[in-house]
Parts: sequence; structure tokens; C-alpha cells
Amino acid sequence: MLKTRVYAFLNENSYFQKFIYTLIILNVFSLIIASYKEIYTPYEIIFDGFEFFSVIVFSIEYILRFWTADLAFEKGSSFSKRIKFSFSTFGLIDLFAILPFYLPFIFPFDLRVLRILRLFRLLRIFKLGRLSKSLQTITSVLKESKSELSITIFVAFILMILSSTLMFYVENDAQPEKFENIGQSLWWSVATLTTVGYGDIYPITNLGKILSSVIALIGIGFVALPTGIISSAFISRMQSEKEKGKGCKCPKCGTEF
Amino acid sequence: MLKTRVYAFLNENSYFQKFIYTLIILNVFSLIIASYKEIYTPYEIIFDGFEFFSVIVFSIEYILRFWTADLAFEKGSSFSKRIKFSFSTFGLIDLFAILPFYLPFIFPFDLRVLRILRLFRLLRIFKLGRLSKSLQTITSVLKESKSELSITIFVAFILMILSSTLMFYVENDAQPEKFENIGQSLWWSVATLTTVGYGDIYPITNLGKILSSVIALIGIGFVALPTGIISSAFISRMQSEKEKGKGCKCPKCGTEF
Amino acid sequence: MLKTRVYAFLNENSYFQKFIYTLIILNVFSLIIASYKEIYTPYEIIFDGFEFFSVIVFSIEYILRFWTADLAFEKGSSFSKRIKFSFSTFGLIDLFAILPFYLPFIFPFDLRVLRILRLFRLLRIFKLGRLSKSLQTITSVLKESKSELSITIFVAFILMILSSTLMFYVENDAQPEKFENIGQSLWWSVATLTTVGYGDIYPITNLGKILSSVIALIGIGFVALPTGIISSAFISRMQSEKEKGKGCKCPKCGTEF
Amino acid sequence: MLKTRVYAFLNENSYFQKFIYTLIILNVFSLIIASYKEIYTPYEIIFDGFEFFSVIVFSIEYILRFWTADLAFEKGSSFSKRIKFSFSTFGLIDLFAILPFYLPFIFPFDLRVLRILRLFRLLRIFKLGRLSKSLQTITSVLKESKSELSITIFVAFILMILSSTLMFYVENDAQPEKFENIGQSLWWSVATLTTVGYGDIYPITNLGKILSSVIALIGIGFVALPTGIISSAFISRMQSEKEKGKGCKCPKCGTEF
Repeated sequence: MLKTRVYAFLNENSYFQKFIYTLIILNVFSLIIASYKEIYTPYEIIFDGFEFFSVIVFSIEYILRFWTADLAFEKGSSFSKRIKFSFSTFGLIDLFAILPFYLPFIFPFDLRVLRILRLFRLLRIFKLGRLSKSLQTITSVLKESKSELSITIFVAFILMILSSTLMFYVENDAQPEKFENIGQSLWWSVATLTTVGYGDIYPITNLGKILSSVIALIGIGFVALPTGIISSAFISRMQSEKEKGKGCKCPKCGTEF
Repeated sequence: MLKTRVYAFLNENSYFQKFIYTLIILNVFSLIIASYKEIYTPYEIIFDGFEFFSVIVFSIEYILRFWTADLAFEKGSSFSKRIKFSFSTFGLIDLFAILPFYLPFIFPFDLRVLRILRLFRLLRIFKLGRLSKSLQTITSVLKESKSELSITIFVAFILMILSSTLMFYVENDAQPEKFENIGQSLWWSVATLTTVGYGDIYPITNLGKILSSVIALIGIGFVALPTGIISSAFISRMQSEKEKGKGCKCPKCGTEF
Repeated sequence: MLKTRVYAFLNENSYFQKFIYTLIILNVFSLIIASYKEIYTPYEIIFDGFEFFSVIVFSIEYILRFWTADLAFEKGSSFSKRIKFSFSTFGLIDLFAILPFYLPFIFPFDLRVLRILRLFRLLRIFKLGRLSKSLQTITSVLKESKSELSITIFVAFILMILSSTLMFYVENDAQPEKFENIGQSLWWSVATLTTVGYGDIYPITNLGKILSSVIALIGIGFVALPTGIISSAFISRMQSEKEKGKGCKCPKCGTEF
Repeated sequence: MLKTRVYAFLNENSYFQKFIYTLIILNVFSLIIASYKEIYTPYEIIFDGFEFFSVIVFSIEYILRFWTADLAFEKGSSFSKRIKFSFSTFGLIDLFAILPFYLPFIFPFDLRVLRILRLFRLLRIFKLGRLSKSLQTITSVLKESKSELSITIFVAFILMILSSTLMFYVENDAQPEKFENIGQSLWWSVATLTTVGYGDIYPITNLGKILSSVIALIGIGFVALPTGIISSAFISRMQSEKEKGKGCKCPKCGTEF
């Protein structure tokens, strides 16, 4: 059957997959290079041509994936399977990655909206996610330690709120234009806790410097904690994989199990 | 009995708990937003009204918790149980989170003291700590490795004192206004060891740069050491939890070993 | 036989090896010190003399290694063994570390090419790699976790592309001279994700600061993930080494189990 | 005997030890506070008096430790034991911590030498090292992973030399006053690899930014590698401690060992 062949072509043909992945990467590079006005302006027609070509390819791919969606799922009617595909993560990514091209033909947008719509083309990078088999180890490890990690983030969040509110009251008098409100203070707090330290905002009073030192030192723990959690999850996974292959033997009757 | 019902309502009713947690978070956001003068000034009455409402709610909560305190503890007279509650961590947090509102009615404070008192409202964020069941894993892991962690902090402290004193003598001549005293030098030392590096203070002499390089490289170990300690504690915990569930049994002859 | 003696001298004589390693390190220091014009100009003749001496020694070493190459490999003709050596990693390093000295005698280069050729002398540092027996543990551990590490790098790469493209659109209007194109935006992205934060480029709009905060916080995970992976690989290695040496034996009845 | 009592007093009396530790910490604080000219100048006599008092106490302690040194070691003549003490780590620290006070009475120094001699007082902080029983776990763990850690440092060192030499040739033309020589370039290299990033020196050319990005990304691994090594050593230690307490049983004859 044609549909089965097309489905196999889309999902198993390695030449087609390499072609799509190359096209995605070229799209991303095109987006980056097009931000250089001195390159974009003289070659505008080439960039637009490449964008046109890409949208055609991705549109055909989307239509074919939609058409063969009933082979991708086991249960349900042909219609419900297509709905399922349309609202699956990759279905939505595939759609939103091409939609911005067609929308202006339907609705008359002003330029600012168009500029934001162009950003949706970045979604194409997520189409690479179909490579994701190898991503599974990492994501499953992160999922296992989700509860500890989310508490770490929660504690970090409380810490940031506390330190930035305190810092605001400490530094506001000395630097009213820098520590203007707690929002600016939060920006300082993130830069300090993550140890980025751009240097655009920092305390100048003695009390502020002491507070900032405490926060920076806690920031070390803020790095150490998730690292410890993730390490522990990786090691747990590695050990359970080892034990699977062990072949345990009863010391009394000698039965292997 | 009414008291038992109230006690259950305070500690088990999920709607009441969600309401309190939402109120706490709204209080924190209100504190942050009120720091934006352009937002606070026109809507002052709304912020004051919300503060008034919050204090009423938290006050009622405190009174009820104080009244039902004799159900929270097992031993002791009704009076001693209430004293126990009043001086428990959460009892004190609950009290200090509302006290600043009432104090000015009793004592006539000047504005500067009032401003500091307002900061006590931040304590309300710690009321979220009652969520803490899920925090237990992390805190117990940190407690297990407390002795190693505190020695790391002690070594880091000595390192900071040493490096900042040396740096003061090295850089004071070249930058008398930056490395003005060892206090400023300590500020440089924290920024370097934690790898924050704001860029407001750094050595300019060759000797100072060499010293700073050594400190920055040691700073890497200063991150690695607590991470190793915490990882090890997490893994230890994970393994002992696994072993609990092991109770290895031969499926053929039933021998446990 | 002379050839066997020479081969042993090159590869086993500890005095010769120490001499070569010292010469390599002196070469590197000479290259660094020669970059100080105030030192290089008056002592130019000494630096040139030392360079001449080093090239003579390294050339003799290369010729001898080439001559004795047929003792280094087991199979193949004398000629094929020498070809094998010439195109081995260390063979190429040895060659390219001396070639730039001879090339100008053959081809007339202009000064700019000569300057780049001089940089090839840096390759001499890799000659230290023959020390590498002790490097094996680390490289083998890194190889074991190669697939997870390369996925982390891939995810980090996508993250950098995404964040820098978004940041370009957010900040370009406010700071057209800093966030001039996505290339500059990528430079910001690396500085933030790695938590270096030089402070030459950072967001000034509120939206940009929020985006930057998110990226900086993700940067923490970006450090935690490879650390967890590498820790896990080191521990796996350590445990399998322990188990090798176990061969558990009952001290009373001698039963192995 | 008096000598035995004195020896016990010096090494076991907890009040005396607390007194000495408090005095050391006060000495360090005095050194820090004396760097504030506005505090030191009016109270010079107090600082000098405290220094005089401290030297007296530490001198008496040194004399007593020297006198009772023959009880601290098992073998050798009374004289050889005292020589042993004098050249032990703590013996030397104790001596150099008080020597600078007496030297000016013997030799007439100029002020600059005196200023450096005063720095020797910082050595007093190492007298706290006698607390070191609890430091043993950490130092023994670091010693176990010494070979891997020293290779990491060696690789980092090569990386720094390579990157700073390349950066010097890349940026020297664009910023001759910043990347003036490879020494300055090394300072940039340390700041980048350790992710401190003060922001006083950074590349401005495109090639330099690409090179810097690569170094910053490698810097992440530079943090991950020692962390992984240290974690692994901590876990190894923890596991061997657990196994000691296990009580292994032969499954055949039931002997515990």
C-alpha cells in the first residue's frame, strides 16, 4: 500500500531523515545569519527563497504525517487518530513551525506582529527532538529526581525573594537608581546566586556587601545540591542496570534466579 | 467538640491550607510590587487594605492555633503546652509576622524603626515551611554531612582571611581607594572564591593577579568539595533505602539471606 | 644492536626523558616570556639561540624515532611501519613542532604567515602527552560517558541558539550596538550559561532580564548535569575495580563465593 | 611530676585550649580591624598592647611546648626530641608566629621589611590546625584522589597556556594595551576557565570571542571533573566504612568473619 510505504519513508528512511535534519539546521543558521544586516540586505532574495523552499518541504512533510497518522497509533478511528496526531507535541511543533508563513495571507497583520510570528520558525529546532531516543536516559534520570530538584528550586526561589527584599532596603538609600525596586534587586539576586556576576549591579554599602557575601556563599550550595541529586540519580540508574545482569544464586539450594 | 474540629480544620483542611498559602504568596508579591513607587503611590489604599485584611486573617489563625495548642502536644498541662507552642519555631514566626502591625499602636515609633518593622512581614514566607514534609529528605541529607560541610566552610573561612590579608598588603599601594582595608579585601575574596566576580574590585599588580589566580583555582575545589560531600550523602541515603526493601528470598526453596 | 639501544634510550632512559620534558617546558616558558617586548628586544639573540638549539634537539629526536620506528610496531614491513609512525598522533606532533623552522628556507613566506607558523611551536606542549599513562583513567572515564556528555552538549547548544535568538529580538531595540546580531547574542549566551559573566554585554530591558535570569538558572543545571554524569562514571569504574579484587573466601572452610 | 602536669595542661585542658583558640581568633580580627586606618590611628595603643599581650602568651606557650617536647615523642634522646619538635610543622608555625616581634630588637630593619614581618603574624591562624582531628576525613579523601586531581590540574595548566598564547596572537592587534603579553593573556585565561569573569579583560574580536566561548565551555568540564573525582572518593570511603561493620557470613559453614 502507498500509505504504508509513505509512513515507512517518513519514519525509517535514513536519507529522508538526514535531509530533514540538515534542512532544520540550515534553517537555524539562516535565521542567525539573517540577523546580520550587512549580510541580509544584499542577499535578501536568497534568504526569502530558502525560507519559501523550507516551508514547502515542511508543509508537505506535515501533510504526509497527517495523512499517515492512522498508522502511528494503535487504537481509535481514523479521524480520532489524526486529531491525536494534531495535538501531540510533535504535531503541534510541526504545525506552528509553518503556520506563521501562511497566516499573513489570511489575516492582514501589522509589522510588529509579523516579526513575532517569524520567531515561531525557531520551533523548527524542536523537530530535531525526533532524534530523542538518546535523550531518554537523561530525561528519565531528571524525572526520577524531580521531587528533590523542584524543592531545591522552591528553596532557591524563597532565598531569592528574601535576599532581594532585604537588599532593596539596605541599598536603596545608597544607590536609588540601581536598586530602584525589588524587581531590580531580584536581578542582582539571580546574578549572585548563579555566580554569573555581570557587574552591572552590586552592593556598595558595608551591610550590603556582607549580605551579598552570604548569598554568594549560599550560591555555592545552590550549585552543589542539584549536582548531588543528579549524581545520585545517575548512580542509582547505573547500579540497577548492573544488578539486572547479575544472575543471583541462592546459597542454600543453588537455584539461579 | 468544637476545639477538635477547629484543630483539624487548621491542620488538615486542604481548602484552608491552600487559602493560607495563597495569601502568603500574595503577601510576598504585594511586598515586591509595593517597592515600585510608580505602582504603590496611586494604589496605596489597595495595598494598605490588603495588608489590613492579611493581618486580620493571620491574627485569627494565630489565636486559633494558640487556643488549640493543647491538642498539638502529648504531655504537659494546658498552660505549658501553650507556652511550648508560643516558643516553637512556627509559633514565633506566626507571632513576629503580625506583631509589627500592632506595635505602633502601643509604642510611638519614629519612621525608621517602622520601616524595619515592616520587614518582619517577610517572615510570613517561612509560614510556607509547614509544607515541609517534602523538605525533609534534603535537610536530613544535609544534616548527615554536617560535620564535613562545616569543616569545608571553616577551611574556606581561613582561606578567605589569609588571601584577603595578603591581597591587602599586595594591592593597597597600587589601589589605595579600592583595597582600602581588609574588609574591602574580604569582599574581593568572596567574589573570587565563589566565582561571582562582579568586576568592581580586582587586582591590577602582577603579584596580585598571581595571588588572585591561585585563589580562583582553589575556588573550583571550594565548589567541588561540598558537591562531593552532598553527592556522597545522597547516594548513601539512596542505597540504604534500597537495602531496606531488599529482604532477598530464594524463589525456589524460600531461604532468606 | 645499535638500533635496539637507541630505541631503548628514547623510550626508557629516564635522564633523556627528563631532559626532553624540561626542554619542552622551557620552550613553552620561552614562548610566553618572548611575548613581553621589554624582555624580548634586548635579549632577542638568546631567545633565537635557544629556539635554534631546541629545533636541533627535537629534529635529532624525530630522526631517531623515525629510524627506530620499525621496533615500535609488531607487524608490517620496515617501510609500512615508518609510514605508520609518521602518521601517528605523536609522529605528526613531533613533525609539525619542528617543520615551521625549516619551511621558510624552502618557500619565501611573508611575515604574517611566518607569525602563524611560529604558533605551531606550541604543539611541542603535546609532546608531554607521552607522559600519558596516568591520563588514561580520566580519558577512559570520559569515553565511557561520551554519549550522555555529547547529548548534554547538544542540548546546551540548542539552548544557546534559542536563548540568543530570543534575546536578540528582545534587546535589539534597546541596545542596537550591543545586541547587534545573533552572533553577539550568542556571545552573551555563552557568558551567561557558563556563569562567566564578563559584564561587557547584558540585558537592560525587564523582559531581557527575566529571560537572562531563566538562562542563568538553567546554567546551574548545565554544570550539574555533566558533573553528575562524570561522577557516576568514576564511581562505576571504582566499584568494578573493587569487585575484581574481591574473590571472597571463607577463612574457615575455604569456600569461595 | 611538674613536666607531666604541664604537658597535660597544654594538650588536654579544655579551658586552656579554648583560651588559646579565642586568642588566635582575636589576633586575626585585630589584624583585620587594624587595617582600617580610621579605627587604628586613635586606638593604636590598644592594638599594640593586645599584640604585646598575645606575644607574651604565645612565647610562654612555645617555651612550655619546647620544654615538654620530650614527652610528645616516644624514641630518641631528650635533645633530639626537642630538635624534632622545633622542626615539626606546628613547632615552626609556633616559632615564626612570634619571631617577627623579637627580630627588630636584634637586627635594625627598615620599615618595608618590618611590614612584611608583621604578615608572619597571620601564621597564628594555622595554630588552629591543632583542632585538625576533624579535618582528617577531608584530607584523606583528597589524598586518595591525589593522582587524578593532579592530572586534572596539569591538563588545566596546559589548556591555560595554549588558550592564552592563542588569545594573545588573536587579540594583541585589537587591544594591544589589554592583551599586552601572554602574562596578561594568562590572567584572562584563569578568569574565564574558573568562570570568575571580572570583566577587566575580555576579547572584542569575533575570533577571540569564539575562542573564549570554547574555553568557557571547557571550563564547565574543568569544574565537573574534580567534582566527579572527589565525589567518587567520598563514596568509596563511605562504602568501605559500611562494609567494615557488615559481619560477613560464609553461606556454607555459617562462620562469621
